[in-house]
Amino acid sequence: MPTFHEAQTSVMELAQFAASRGWLPATSGNLSVRVSDQPLTFAITRSGADKSRLQPEDVLLLDADMRAQGDTPYKPSAETTVHVALYQKFECGSILHVHTVYNNLVSELYAEQGFVEIRGHELVKALGHWEEGAAVRIPIVPNWADLHRLGSAVAEAAQADVPAVLVRAHGVYAWGDTPDDARRHLEAIEFLCEYMYKLHLARGRGTV
Amino acid sequence: MPTFHEAQTSVMELAQFAASRGWLPATSGNLSVRVSDQPLTFAITRSGADKSRLQPEDVLLLDADMRAQGDTPYKPSAETTVHVALYQKFECGSILHVHTVYNNLVSELYAEQGFVEIRGHELVKALGHWEEGAAVRIPIVPNWADLHRLGSAVAEAAQADVPAVLVRAHGVYAWGDTPDDARRHLEAIEFLCEYMYKLHLARGRGTV
Amino acid sequence: MPTFHEAQTSVMELAQFAASRGWLPATSGNLSVRVSDQPLTFAITRSGADKSRLQPEDVLLLDADMRAQGDTPYKPSAETTVHVALYQKFECGSILHVHTVYNNLVSELYAEQGFVEIRGHELVKALGHWEEGAAVRIPIVPNWADLHRLGSAVAEAAQADVPAVLVRAHGVYAWGDTPDDARRHLEAIEFLCEYMYKLHLARGRGTV
Amino acid sequence: MPTFHEAQTSVMELAQFAASRGWLPATSGNLSVRVSDQPLTFAITRSGADKSRLQPEDVLLLDADMRAQGDTPYKPSAETTVHVALYQKFECGSILHVHTVYNNLVSELYAEQGFVEIRGHELVKALGHWEEGAAVRIPIVPNWADLHRLGSAVAEAAQADVPAVLVRAHGVYAWGDTPDDARRHLEAIEFLCEYMYKLHLARGRGTV
Repeated sequence: MPTFHEAQTSVMELAQFAASRGWLPATSGNLSVRVSDQPLTFAITRSGADKSRLQPEDVLLLDADMRAQGDTPYKPSAETTVHVALYQKFECGSILHVHTVYNNLVSELYAEQGFVEIRGHELVKALGHWEEGAAVRIPIVPNWADLHRLGSAVAEAAQADVPAVLVRAHGVYAWGDTPDDARRHLEAIEFLCEYMYKLHLARGRGTV
Repeated sequence: MPTFHEAQTSVMELAQFAASRGWLPATSGNLSVRVSDQPLTFAITRSGADKSRLQPEDVLLLDADMRAQGDTPYKPSAETTVHVALYQKFECGSILHVHTVYNNLVSELYAEQGFVEIRGHELVKALGHWEEGAAVRIPIVPNWADLHRLGSAVAEAAQADVPAVLVRAHGVYAWGDTPDDARRHLEAIEFLCEYMYKLHLARGRGTV
Repeated sequence: MPTFHEAQTSVMELAQFAASRGWLPATSGNLSVRVSDQPLTFAITRSGADKSRLQPEDVLLLDADMRAQGDTPYKPSAETTVHVALYQKFECGSILHVHTVYNNLVSELYAEQGFVEIRGHELVKALGHWEEGAAVRIPIVPNWADLHRLGSAVAEAAQADVPAVLVRAHGVYAWGDTPDDARRHLEAIEFLCEYMYKLHLARGRGTV
Repeated sequence: MPTFHEAQTSVMELAQFAASRGWLPATSGNLSVRVSDQPLTFAITRSGADKSRLQPEDVLLLDADMRAQGDTPYKPSAETTVHVALYQKFECGSILHVHTVYNNLVSELYAEQGFVEIRGHELVKALGHWEEGAAVRIPIVPNWADLHRLGSAVAEAAQADVPAVLVRAHGVYAWGDTPDDARRHLEAIEFLCEYMYKLHLARGRGTV
């Protein structure tokens, strides 16, 4: 596992990547990298930071109770609850939470059935599904205002074989064993959300 | 409050930010930062400048009568009336006016009801609304050719709890206590306008 | 009027601007700046150049018969006929021809009526129309394979008060007194084409 | 023909070009340049590389049996079969395989008829069709899980006069005599796929 300094550098690289694509609008989103297991600690962007101009001090080291380790004037984001819940459920090393127009649209258009299914698309291989005609279901959970409830809902919906959960009219959580894996999963999810929305426009729902 | 020199630098940074996203097409738009209160003065982009290539001399110091302070060959934009009207109504420190395809589309599609309402979307938090299921109404005003009338109309429609007004088939005015606040509000408004238009395409009007 | 060297520099700056937006795909498009009047000469991009990697030698000095002045291994583009026809009709100093998805879509969707009309949109001011509720008609001409015929058709359709002509399923010609004017006109046209297409999707044709 | 070192440099430039446009999401896609004919060898991106951060060692020299020449810890992508099949059928010098939302949408919307036809559009000139009203048919093949079968299907569908084949819900293969030709063809195909999809939205299928 990385040191805090290495994890901090990874978080800054992930922020540069996601901000350059416009995936962290209006200081939204949170990016984290696990530092230790027993007890759980992880590096994560602080509340309210503009990720296109992130500084090292904007990345905090937190424990499972969201207490900052070391001296910092900054507070963690309230949504850190979701990162904690996912790190406690899975062995993943990095979690990315971003807001995009297309993941928001898919989360809204397919909200009632509780998931969106992508069948027979090449890019599900990037999510680890290599079998012919593979179908991937990405869960969609309500956007609970109570953030402990949101954390529980995301972790409960999360499946070991699909590294992402959509939150309705809010955004996506994607994760992976390493920061590069999490980034690859997120790129695939965003591509597929744009594809699903645009196919929906051409054909109507449920035809993919 | 900032000095004129500090405000000038902020205006140039805001122009760099907005121009890089294509939000100031064809030399349109105006960006300003308040310098003093009694009497009102503010730094603002001059008329006709290409904001992707802004120079310090393209940022003027104006008073409430739109008279330039100091020696300059340039004229203020006629739309400066709207900035004056907003600075006189609110204590905001910065105002951003941009033209985008999505804010134009929303302003046209929802023009007749005089506002667009966004309900239950996470990003309204970036506009200061944190309560569960919060609904935000962004006013839409006609694009009056008389710019004093336009200034009055925008200021009259502007609400203390929603830091933006759309002008039909023209653009948006967004503001905030600081340049960073104004930028965050504008990023959220632009995200929500793109989202609203694309949801409208998938579902038809009034279903958000 | 500029020297050839100045015009060459302007053409390269215009190419950098238009290529960075993806408006010159697959080596398409041509950009020119007038150098002299009696007789007509102008600097223009050569045939087949990738404008994202333009070199000074890719900009030719041509006369009204499309003969290259000076020593060059390169040929002018066959579409240079259109530039000649426009320079002979108007006193404009710069002409930009680009291919974009949105100008292509508008040229196709409104081809049969021979023009697209934009009424009451703020950005027609960037095309020189400041009166209230101004309406601008951009002509659309067939994409004649015979390039002398295409040049005549574009010049004939071109109006003094609207600095652009669309060619069906091909692209746009926009011009102005200076390279900056031509660029501002082109930015406005591209914005309006994207807006018109997206409004058409939401509402159907003829409702703008 | 280029040396391996020259081909490696070309592959890295092509990767920079395609990655900057978002055409290689989630480590997908493969780019290659032919090095020799008898026997066939070519430089190609390795499996799993992030093309936005490509290093020289990520470009392998392979033979027709997909065996890496020289010492490398990396494996070729399984999809290299398609490159081999195309190099064996045509004399082309470079092959580009990318995944984009628009080529995926067109491949899905027109899958059943086995091709998409573009008629009377200017940009088919960039594919080598200069006759008036030229029509270009881009073949669409099923996304066979067996990659030898996919290679055969792409090579069989490929026509000498249209330098591209779409694979359903997967991506496109485009090629050319040189890396610049392949790039120009790919740019034209991507432009046309976006255009075809957006015209389909406005008009419905089969109307282009």
